[in-house]
Amino acid sequence: MIVEIVSTGDELITGSIVDTNASYIASKFLETGILVKRFSLVGDDRKEIQIVLKEISTRADIVIVTGGLGPTKDDLTAEIAAMVSNDKLILSKEALSDMEAFFKQKNFKMSETNKKQAYFPSKAVILKNACGTAPGFYMNYGKSIFYFLPGVPFEMKEMFKKRVLPDICGKFEVSQRLKSKFTLFGVPESKAAQNLEGFEEKFPMLQLGFRAAFPIIEIKLSSPAISDDVKVRESFSKAHNWALSKFVAANVVSDKGLSMEEEVARLLIEKQKTIAVAESCTGGLISSLLTDVPGSSAYFLFSAITYSNEAKINILNVNQSTIIKHGAVHQNTAEEMAKGVMEKAGADFGISTSGIAGPTGGTDEKPVGTICIGFAKKGYSTAKTYCLNFNDRTRNKKVFAATCLNTLRKELL
Amino acid sequence: MIVEIVSTGDELITGSIVDTNASYIASKFLETGILVKRFSLVGDDRKEIQIVLKEISTRADIVIVTGGLGPTKDDLTAEIAAMVSNDKLILSKEALSDMEAFFKQKNFKMSETNKKQAYFPSKAVILKNACGTAPGFYMNYGKSIFYFLPGVPFEMKEMFKKRVLPDICGKFEVSQRLKSKFTLFGVPESKAAQNLEGFEEKFPMLQLGFRAAFPIIEIKLSSPAISDDVKVRESFSKAHNWALSKFVAANVVSDKGLSMEEEVARLLIEKQKTIAVAESCTGGLISSLLTDVPGSSAYFLFSAITYSNEAKINILNVNQSTIIKHGAVHQNTAEEMAKGVMEKAGADFGISTSGIAGPTGGTDEKPVGTICIGFAKKGYSTAKTYCLNFNDRTRNKKVFAATCLNTLRKELL
Repeated sequence: MIVEIVSTGDELITGSIVDTNASYIASKFLETGILVKRFSLVGDDRKEIQIVLKEISTRADIVIVTGGLGPTKDDLTAEIAAMVSNDKLILSKEALSDMEAFFKQKNFKMSETNKKQAYFPSKAVILKNACGTAPGFYMNYGKSIFYFLPGVPFEMKEMFKKRVLPDICGKFEVSQRLKSKFTLFGVPESKAAQNLEGFEEKFPMLQLGFRAAFPIIEIKLSSPAISDDVKVRESFSKAHNWALSKFVAANVVSDKGLSMEEEVARLLIEKQKTIAVAESCTGGLISSLLTDVPGSSAYFLFSAITYSNEAKINILNVNQSTIIKHGAVHQNTAEEMAKGVMEKAGADFGISTSGIAGPTGGTDEKPVGTICIGFAKKGYSTAKTYCLNFNDRTRNKKVFAATCLNTLRKELL
Repeated sequence: MIVEIVSTGDELITGSIVDTNASYIASKFLETGILVKRFSLVGDDRKEIQIVLKEISTRADIVIVTGGLGPTKDDLTAEIAAMVSNDKLILSKEALSDMEAFFKQKNFKMSETNKKQAYFPSKAVILKNACGTAPGFYMNYGKSIFYFLPGVPFEMKEMFKKRVLPDICGKFEVSQRLKSKFTLFGVPESKAAQNLEGFEEKFPMLQLGFRAAFPIIEIKLSSPAISDDVKVRESFSKAHNWALSKFVAANVVSDKGLSMEEEVARLLIEKQKTIAVAESCTGGLISSLLTDVPGSSAYFLFSAITYSNEAKINILNVNQSTIIKHGAVHQNTAEEMAKGVMEKAGADFGISTSGIAGPTGGTDEKPVGTICIGFAKKGYSTAKTYCLNFNDRTRNKKVFAATCLNTLRKELL
């Protein structure tokens, strides 16, 4: 079965944004054992889109097209799909009333231009959009079934996962792969790859994949398409455990593949503990990550983002003398911050950061990348200084936040 | 001039990693006024790479190919380039000795497999690699000049910037584009497009683009390649102002295209004002956004993330009676939070959020998406309730944060 992916959009062909849709779709196909053959990417260019669709319709079985379903003039997909297949656009009353309901729920007035999104090639089957205004559709054209999906990643993913992939799996009888995942922190990707050398010889029936979700690395194992094979099933958990054993426990965030914040949240809930956070250089990122996990009010009590020394002293009861003697970026300050926020919030644990995210503010003694992590629990507090510079303010914030959460994670094990 | 980009690699076609090379190259081309026509991406698949190169050689003037120049068996590019152009591979002694020098400098032993990287089609011109072992090369094939570059982004960028682009600019006499950008908040993309209808008729020489960086929309204007034309220069600023005038000031975040947090930071610095933030449902996101901007310690004093009622009362001096009477998600509570955090931090302004990000926690009276935004300055405080549900916890957090920052932005104008 030949599968191809087409991405459309001026914002993509100009390099304004990177196309993440095609790789998402390809990785989901791979989970069902299908290797995509080719990605093509073109701008909102009527002629070029026509050419690409025509070419592909002569060779592919399945084509996923993203983008160009919006309400604006440069959203051309439905029109071109109708044109190349000698069809015409007709209004879908159902799609229109869905759209009207969507706007009503949001208390927005639906504009006239949105109506365009309710027109589809007459032979198309419409795919409802649960999260936006642009429905997708699919239709036969040439040798291929073309699925047209919105370009907004969030909407595309929902539609692809819930509607398109099950539809394709049903039509082509593809079976599910076995798969597992674990997450690492504090190991460079090259080192992770080195540790796992020999996997392919040892488990030739399985596939090993790496994904960097900075600063976390995901290690993914999967079986080939036909996984009813007993041998494959048997070797699968063996392989997972073999791969895990190549890393020290401190570097393994989750053997289920959870993100750092998800694993910390899971552990806090499991142990019925609460947390308070004092952030300086991470500026709220730790708190935002923790509260991205649904249900975070069960364990997250309070966080203080104390950039200024006054706030550290007044809110967190850091001793003025500690700051005068050592400065704000020091492990003694971080330790007092962690203890202070824990006590203030009445939490079981306090964690803290104080450091230099850059690009400026570094000195010879405390260069950009210096990060002090504090930790406190009842009757005990500690802190540690690291130097972790990734030459970019937001990347530094991310690695600082993960280091702090990792300190808490290890404490919760 | 038709330019196309080809990316190769199994790690790309399987979705293990996202291809960022193509968009980098396209954006650099755009800076010289060249809009790339198409990206193609294939795996390390001998037959498919041949097909793609042959196809493109019949239509493009310039083709940039990345990947497949490494030392391993699945690095096929040089071999395929020779094959399709009826050429043969020959050893470049210069490339070999460069490679030997590279390994020596790093104190690595050069392996036999690396020698493969010193073989090129006999008609190719070699491009030295300043940062790695894989040299690139270029050659004529069909209608096109093909540039073959390494796939490692860092090496590719160096080679593209320093060697390829200057070479192309020299050959084709390309010039710079004019461009401008502004950002909008609170306008659906469809509405933005409607407001700008007529642009193409009015300014036929210019290009208009939209990019959604949820919940912000960027509107981009650019001139075609040849921008020395006086008419184009004259109409450019006229067009920018015309487009801006189609939106009420409250919806325009920045006429320079800054993000919400960058614009708020700029205004706070310009007016020499300081800010404190009290966050409930946004969980630290507002603070993290504000502190993503380098130099944020100039205006950002303190932020309290108060999930629990106790923290709202103890840290922010919210009246217990307010919470008992109205609940935590209420504009009276939000107003007291903003006032409390401003006073606590001694800041010029206080802003706050209290709401329901979902997916659970909503009621009939206060559904998911309910967000109360508080604002305080000396002698004045206020709050407002909105309902903004985007069916996803992290998207809701983003739109809540932007709504809160927008309240502050309008106050700073």
